[in-house]
Amino acid sequence: MNALPAALLRETAELSESVTRPIPGSRKVHVEGSRPDIRVPMREVTLADTPSTFGAEKNAPFAIYDTSGPYTDPGYAVDLTVGLPALRARWIEERGDTHQLGDFTSPFTRRHATAPSLADVRFPNIPKPRVANAGANVSQMHYARRGLITPEMEYVAIRENQKLDAMHERHLLKQHPGQSFGAAIPRLITPEFVRDEIARGRAIIANNINHPESEPMIIGRNFLVKINANIGNSAVTSSIAEEVEKMVWAIRWGADTVMDLSTGKHIHETREWILRNSPVPIGTVPIYQALEKVGGAAEDLTWDLFRDTLIEQAEQGVDYFTIHAGVRLPFVPMTAKRVTGIVSRGGSIMAKWCLAHHRESFLYERFEEICEIMKAYDVAFSLGDGLRPGSIADANDQAQFAELDTLGELTQVAWKHDVQVMIEGPGHVPMHLIKENMERQLEKCGEAPFYTLGPLTTDIAPGYDHITSAIGAAMIGWYGTAMLCYVTPKEHLGLPDKQDVRDGIITYKIAAHAADLAKGHPSAQARDNALSKARFEFRWDDQFNLGLDPEKAKEFHDETLPKDAHKTAHFCSMCGPKFCSMKITQDVREYARINNIGDESALDAGMAEKSAEFRAAGAQIYLSE
Amino acid sequence: MNALPAALLRETAELSESVTRPIPGSRKVHVEGSRPDIRVPMREVTLADTPSTFGAEKNAPFAIYDTSGPYTDPGYAVDLTVGLPALRARWIEERGDTHQLGDFTSPFTRRHATAPSLADVRFPNIPKPRVANAGANVSQMHYARRGLITPEMEYVAIRENQKLDAMHERHLLKQHPGQSFGAAIPRLITPEFVRDEIARGRAIIANNINHPESEPMIIGRNFLVKINANIGNSAVTSSIAEEVEKMVWAIRWGADTVMDLSTGKHIHETREWILRNSPVPIGTVPIYQALEKVGGAAEDLTWDLFRDTLIEQAEQGVDYFTIHAGVRLPFVPMTAKRVTGIVSRGGSIMAKWCLAHHRESFLYERFEEICEIMKAYDVAFSLGDGLRPGSIADANDQAQFAELDTLGELTQVAWKHDVQVMIEGPGHVPMHLIKENMERQLEKCGEAPFYTLGPLTTDIAPGYDHITSAIGAAMIGWYGTAMLCYVTPKEHLGLPDKQDVRDGIITYKIAAHAADLAKGHPSAQARDNALSKARFEFRWDDQFNLGLDPEKAKEFHDETLPKDAHKTAHFCSMCGPKFCSMKITQDVREYARINNIGDESALDAGMAEKSAEFRAAGAQIYLSE
Repeated sequence: MNALPAALLRETAELSESVTRPIPGSRKVHVEGSRPDIRVPMREVTLADTPSTFGAEKNAPFAIYDTSGPYTDPGYAVDLTVGLPALRARWIEERGDTHQLGDFTSPFTRRHATAPSLADVRFPNIPKPRVANAGANVSQMHYARRGLITPEMEYVAIRENQKLDAMHERHLLKQHPGQSFGAAIPRLITPEFVRDEIARGRAIIANNINHPESEPMIIGRNFLVKINANIGNSAVTSSIAEEVEKMVWAIRWGADTVMDLSTGKHIHETREWILRNSPVPIGTVPIYQALEKVGGAAEDLTWDLFRDTLIEQAEQGVDYFTIHAGVRLPFVPMTAKRVTGIVSRGGSIMAKWCLAHHRESFLYERFEEICEIMKAYDVAFSLGDGLRPGSIADANDQAQFAELDTLGELTQVAWKHDVQVMIEGPGHVPMHLIKENMERQLEKCGEAPFYTLGPLTTDIAPGYDHITSAIGAAMIGWYGTAMLCYVTPKEHLGLPDKQDVRDGIITYKIAAHAADLAKGHPSAQARDNALSKARFEFRWDDQFNLGLDPEKAKEFHDETLPKDAHKTAHFCSMCGPKFCSMKITQDVREYARINNIGDESALDAGMAEKSAEFRAAGAQIYLSE
Repeated sequence: MNALPAALLRETAELSESVTRPIPGSRKVHVEGSRPDIRVPMREVTLADTPSTFGAEKNAPFAIYDTSGPYTDPGYAVDLTVGLPALRARWIEERGDTHQLGDFTSPFTRRHATAPSLADVRFPNIPKPRVANAGANVSQMHYARRGLITPEMEYVAIRENQKLDAMHERHLLKQHPGQSFGAAIPRLITPEFVRDEIARGRAIIANNINHPESEPMIIGRNFLVKINANIGNSAVTSSIAEEVEKMVWAIRWGADTVMDLSTGKHIHETREWILRNSPVPIGTVPIYQALEKVGGAAEDLTWDLFRDTLIEQAEQGVDYFTIHAGVRLPFVPMTAKRVTGIVSRGGSIMAKWCLAHHRESFLYERFEEICEIMKAYDVAFSLGDGLRPGSIADANDQAQFAELDTLGELTQVAWKHDVQVMIEGPGHVPMHLIKENMERQLEKCGEAPFYTLGPLTTDIAPGYDHITSAIGAAMIGWYGTAMLCYVTPKEHLGLPDKQDVRDGIITYKIAAHAADLAKGHPSAQARDNALSKARFEFRWDDQFNLGLDPEKAKEFHDETLPKDAHKTAHFCSMCGPKFCSMKITQDVREYARINNIGDESALDAGMAEKSAEFRAAGAQIYLSE
């Protein structure tokens, strides 16, 4: 059982090198909470001073929300075969409502833990699982409703603030008031506010007690908009090492959660490697693995088999489950006349099961039993939209909304059990129909966090669906969606490689941030202001490093102006040294300052005599190269 | 004067090969109008039949709006040194209100036409210019207001319809009603509708009488949303051959107009090559060249010099001029407290001139004289937004809106002269402030077409500003913007290369189409429906070919499933052969069809007995590879 998988080790050694290189211009810092083991990581970007021509200011370091985990900490020695430190272990133990099991509950897990044929793919240091004591409920929602502020809640409060209390004075020169469509985002996030939002179901912390390696994060409309990246192998492509690498790669660029959507070989083993090495919450779609267990025949799925799969995954530490319990028998024929039918894999599996048995879905019928499992490990629901539209034509139709309304009913059932819930959303939706989705979700699902895939705003751009969907994602994020599931350029065409994952994540970080700005998230604009100030002052490296992808920005700049001297040049390649609008503006500003103008009355007062002076000065304005 | 530039010839030979390769799965067709010389090009995509498992339908060819000109017509022999056929020459002559000049009016042009030092960069077959007869006005707006339907108007009517009258029955299975915010788009575009829209200033046809090679197109909120691509060299990079290549490349991917923003060497000569070879309208910013003529010293600009530059460019055939006549002296100090001051090059030049002379802008003061020039050649105004915001912080501020209101005044002046106008717009604007821009523009500028750069919805993604801006572009297009100026990934960092141009254009085609869909442009959804139907029926090649970038889509697909057999496979690489939601849906649909269900009542009626049949059939559903 402890035989190290040699091939994997070789691959992982390579991987750890590629994903741990420092992010340019920044360093890992930690903000300590009320106890020394609450240490919230942030990435602090060091900024250069403003050049003397622009006023010679000091620019304080800028703290950025950091999802990358210990991998970007040069002081941390990565060993993927050991996994990350269990930073939440003590918090979980201290609560005294769980115990460690001697072995795994699922017979499937027990077989996989010992089968000699899996020795070369098995994670070498599998921890023993924990479970709630008899009758206990270990969900963050349960604690919140009892008035308890957990270390997890304090952690996310610190994390959401991103040192903004300090930044307010330094970087937040000004910010537009937003339009939040009813969101209620406080200026600073307190642990009590976090507790309250979780208690009323408006936010979740997806942190399974068996994933103590995870750094708590919060998903809700009154917090920063989050993004999810999907990874996962299929029968056709990909290996365990590739998937672990993709996970570490994804969080490096900013994925707040990662879903493992594997459908191919070694699903169980792949997931173990990912969980033990993931500092972000991991989501899965358990029905995928259940289907593998019955050889791909949806009609052979049973509740017992599905239940065992839930427990198998819950004891591994999966933080949230996509469960398509809203695909009810009567809704299935509503899809028959669609242009693209049912495009969700989970949705189509359940539709097939329902038709084959002419029975109501066992996920729907057994929903309360599922809740019992969820609360014993604190797994959150991500109620799947199995009937989401797969084309513009099918957007906002009867099937889609029938399912959404059902997800609203199920949300109330889950909340009765103090189980955390988010709701998945479309899909393909033209811009003008997006808002209806958000409004209906808020209304029917009691403001449970909405978690949407895109939506894609047109079908006609295969190869560019990260962009067709980023448009919809930014809008629905603005309207109130709490987490955006990324779409990569390979959507509809193939499985994403590393470059696609990076493109998808950066694109979704853009959408999420655009949404934060439009909602008026307090201080969201600080980063825009800091970057634009750096841009205006020709602090090129600061401009790159404050961006979402410093490496790409620098690479693009260097294509035309590679010399190091150009990093401080007061011009750029677009206009060249003699012709620069920023340079001219700087002259305008200096002129206005010297002449004490800035309003029309001052302007009227004797500017004519100054113009001769300016002309003389202007002759020296342009830099020669 | 006719010495062929050898170096250029070598380069252009290479170029013509790379940009004339056929676009996969499609062929050039022409729709004839009321006279045989009105032949409107379209790109017709040939579609495969629906496979028998999906019902064995014939799928009629699909006509796509085609901006690529003769370059994608295999029957056309490209010779860049000769230029394109002058398809509008007869229409212009027939009107009898213009005459050919013996030589160019501008002394600058005359010098450049003969200087021996320019022999190696000069276009070898420069045509003689035309100008309006004394007192005549040759603008399309002038004709429209006199009730005349020109061949250009008929041409664009046919072009806008894209054979949709035929497609309505075949491809437009269904379409969502849109939300058009007051646009009034008829089901089919008639020449009379075109005339009426131009007469009231709500649309323009930018077609200089000295650019008879151009294929007419229309810009207005009641037509398809258009996109512009910027090209142009600077002092730092790029050559004439590269710029011509970028133009042909840009129209291949879908640019409706191209702006030549050159600021470096050989501006005049580069423009001639581009114009003679461009089937799309060409726009410029004449102040850039004027500034070159005074050695980069903005304060040395004069009206006479600027006027000569306008005539120089008008006689070459430039179709629209960006003129920053709204940058008035009193507005300049309003920018002094901005985070990023004045970021428009034209705006900063004029601001500097105004301050240096402490005088009102000569562009503003001489605006009626400019109108006189415009109407003698039918050059359209693109009234520049010289004070557009360069950062989120500066969006929608006093300076920006003061200028916009002034552009509204100037629109009325231009319309008094029957000169066509569009209005340029921002810039950097967070999502929630975009709509205010559109509403104010419609109100203040009398519904003259809005032509916006993005807007970028956040500042924090250098290297990805095609995406930050596509979000804003799609939204403002939906709200009523008529043309979107693309932004490439290199924005803020460097000049775009070919790949950046392609990325920028496809991204903006997405934004424009998403806007058409949301506005409810009649039949916009036909292409989405046709593509989604192809996707659902596993017609892979049709899916690629109906997309905006067939080559990229195929390339991505082939990365995981390269074999030709996979182009007809009933699965894709995402899920593999045993696990495909589209396949399962197809079973659901077939089941519903066979059992004659599709509503709940049918479902209730004795489905139980059918379920056994389905299970038996289901065993054969999955394909083995």
